[in-house]
Amino acid sequence: MTGSSLRELLRDDLRDQTAYGAPQLDVPVALNTNESSYPVPAAVVETIARRVGAVASSLNRYPDREFTELRTALAAYLTRTTGTALVADQLWAGNGSNEVLSHLVQAFGGQGRTALGFTPSYSMHPIIARSVGTTWVDGLRGAPSGVFDLDLDRAVEQARETDPHLVFLCSPNNPTGTSLSLDVVEAVYDAAPRAVVVVDEAYTEFARPGTPSATTLLDGRERLVVTRTMSKAFAFAGVRLGYLAAAAELTELLRLVRLPYHLSSVTQAVALAALEHADEMLAMVEAIKTERDRLVAGVTDLGLTPVPSDANFVLVGGFADAHTTWQALLEQGVLVRDVGIAHHLRITAGTPAETEAVLAALATLDRSHRQER
Amino acid sequence: MTGSSLRELLRDDLRDQTAYGAPQLDVPVALNTNESSYPVPAAVVETIARRVGAVASSLNRYPDREFTELRTALAAYLTRTTGTALVADQLWAGNGSNEVLSHLVQAFGGQGRTALGFTPSYSMHPIIARSVGTTWVDGLRGAPSGVFDLDLDRAVEQARETDPHLVFLCSPNNPTGTSLSLDVVEAVYDAAPRAVVVVDEAYTEFARPGTPSATTLLDGRERLVVTRTMSKAFAFAGVRLGYLAAAAELTELLRLVRLPYHLSSVTQAVALAALEHADEMLAMVEAIKTERDRLVAGVTDLGLTPVPSDANFVLVGGFADAHTTWQALLEQGVLVRDVGIAHHLRITAGTPAETEAVLAALATLDRSHRQER
Repeated sequence: MTGSSLRELLRDDLRDQTAYGAPQLDVPVALNTNESSYPVPAAVVETIARRVGAVASSLNRYPDREFTELRTALAAYLTRTTGTALVADQLWAGNGSNEVLSHLVQAFGGQGRTALGFTPSYSMHPIIARSVGTTWVDGLRGAPSGVFDLDLDRAVEQARETDPHLVFLCSPNNPTGTSLSLDVVEAVYDAAPRAVVVVDEAYTEFARPGTPSATTLLDGRERLVVTRTMSKAFAFAGVRLGYLAAAAELTELLRLVRLPYHLSSVTQAVALAALEHADEMLAMVEAIKTERDRLVAGVTDLGLTPVPSDANFVLVGGFADAHTTWQALLEQGVLVRDVGIAHHLRITAGTPAETEAVLAALATLDRSHRQER
Repeated sequence: MTGSSLRELLRDDLRDQTAYGAPQLDVPVALNTNESSYPVPAAVVETIARRVGAVASSLNRYPDREFTELRTALAAYLTRTTGTALVADQLWAGNGSNEVLSHLVQAFGGQGRTALGFTPSYSMHPIIARSVGTTWVDGLRGAPSGVFDLDLDRAVEQARETDPHLVFLCSPNNPTGTSLSLDVVEAVYDAAPRAVVVVDEAYTEFARPGTPSATTLLDGRERLVVTRTMSKAFAFAGVRLGYLAAAAELTELLRLVRLPYHLSSVTQAVALAALEHADEMLAMVEAIKTERDRLVAGVTDLGLTPVPSDANFVLVGGFADAHTTWQALLEQGVLVRDVGIAHHLRITAGTPAETEAVLAALATLDRSHRQER
């Protein structure tokens, strides 16, 4: 039996798939995965060392399966930053927000069930939903006020028609960058009466001033879930810590599907170290927002068309062929993301030097890279 | 909507389930989860601190998605300890061997597919298989040479009849403790021509001398997978690092189902620290085997009936009612495991003091705890 016949043993829907992969290339300017370009501050590194040191000798024991201290710290962080009073029982965490999303589809999705999302959005939502056999419905954003905005009436209409078991909303939306009005969340929740409604807020700490979190809607909505990550605003992509807030009754049900002891003692210790220093970890957020706004202004000056961004990235339109331009930028040492949207590339906001580098690289491109008007 | 109606939104097969849970009780003698009772040695704690310190400031970046250094170190460890020459491409890892098993059932199981296992065995095998809709077939061990041994002819017969997509073997078997002859592995592999055959060797480092690893069968068997963990022999339950060895063509296919960046930079660093000190981490294995053998002799002297063990635990038979005795031992501060096998309790081998404590507690029990002969 050869490699190709091993492939025939795969689950049917996987046979013609290729693995997820943003290229992990070693380039001078990596602005492709929405990481933070800012290293973890020295004071936090010290606390990480102290907390890991404190648990290291007892790593022979299984972790606290309920990660109670971590859930308490995450509840306190969200309470302080969103104005929604939350308690530990309302919090849940996993190895990255992908695992948290996976727990949700394992509990509430599966064969014979339907999940509705509105594309373009986070590419892992359909992959994770389908991984347990859930039928994915690709909703349309259908956007009077902007190319990629999610229109309330169209969203409600599609939720009613589909009557899904899960709905995925994303605010700010990845890869387009704009936050969703809470009116849309409320309306979709009401229009999908048997659905667990997930609002993916991975990037919300970068939102423009006055943007409320969907956590403010949790009270009285037991099917609503708000997911978060420490990868972005906390500059902690290497730690893999995603979490969610929901009704305590809902997080209780996730215990049925998580693998026992899914969060290691080390992960719990490192995440607690960062939460202890939340203000320092988040200090870079303002700097990154400044660079995002410089990026928006810079590409506009170059005649390109940025989508309004509440995230640490900007989706930039106006390219003749996204892949050709992606390659041309890479040849100049600048790695951005071709997210599969015609004429658009997604660029992470990084340091001031990175903003200048990507704008300089874009400025060198000749007119053949530009979309005809 | 209340908590109970939220439960009605669950996947059908989960609705009447309760969450996995070995009780995490704070007792003087915890011999219920097959952890190592020996703390991580000081030299390893130092290396953990050094390696975590080295990655801490760059945790703003995503981990190496291919965990190449870790796969190389795991290949070297298995090559050295099993005598099977393995390379990094044949290795795969996850957050605990449960996650590695989950990757296998996601790739090769699912709705309309069948997994065969032989109970009693590791309780997570059917749970993980069913989590993606795989039909689980509870095979019989059917045991001429001992109560819980897996008989070759009966195993082959059941593999032929079921024609499964996945087979789970467990050697040494948990919770019974005895290793499986490689003849059985070979015969089941041949009798199930479209199956990925998984040999779960979580406890194999504790096997009696001369017990070969199923890795010695990998050459020429592209559907064979051997899973391992660092939780047991490496005394590293808190780190959650499971791994497997298989054909490179098979591990390549697991990239289709793992969540991107599933292994954190911190987990990779900590596991590498332990592998750097493999000899020190494994030094306790001989001490634990000595305690296991003392436990076997001690319970035999008490008139109880231990199952032959190649693991860091002993399944002890001869109790009138397993749960009653479990409770009576707990009242004496000794926590063991009621694994749901009538008349039996599973006891982890710990330190000499723990062996004495559990034997002393057993000795206090009156005749009402004993099964009639």
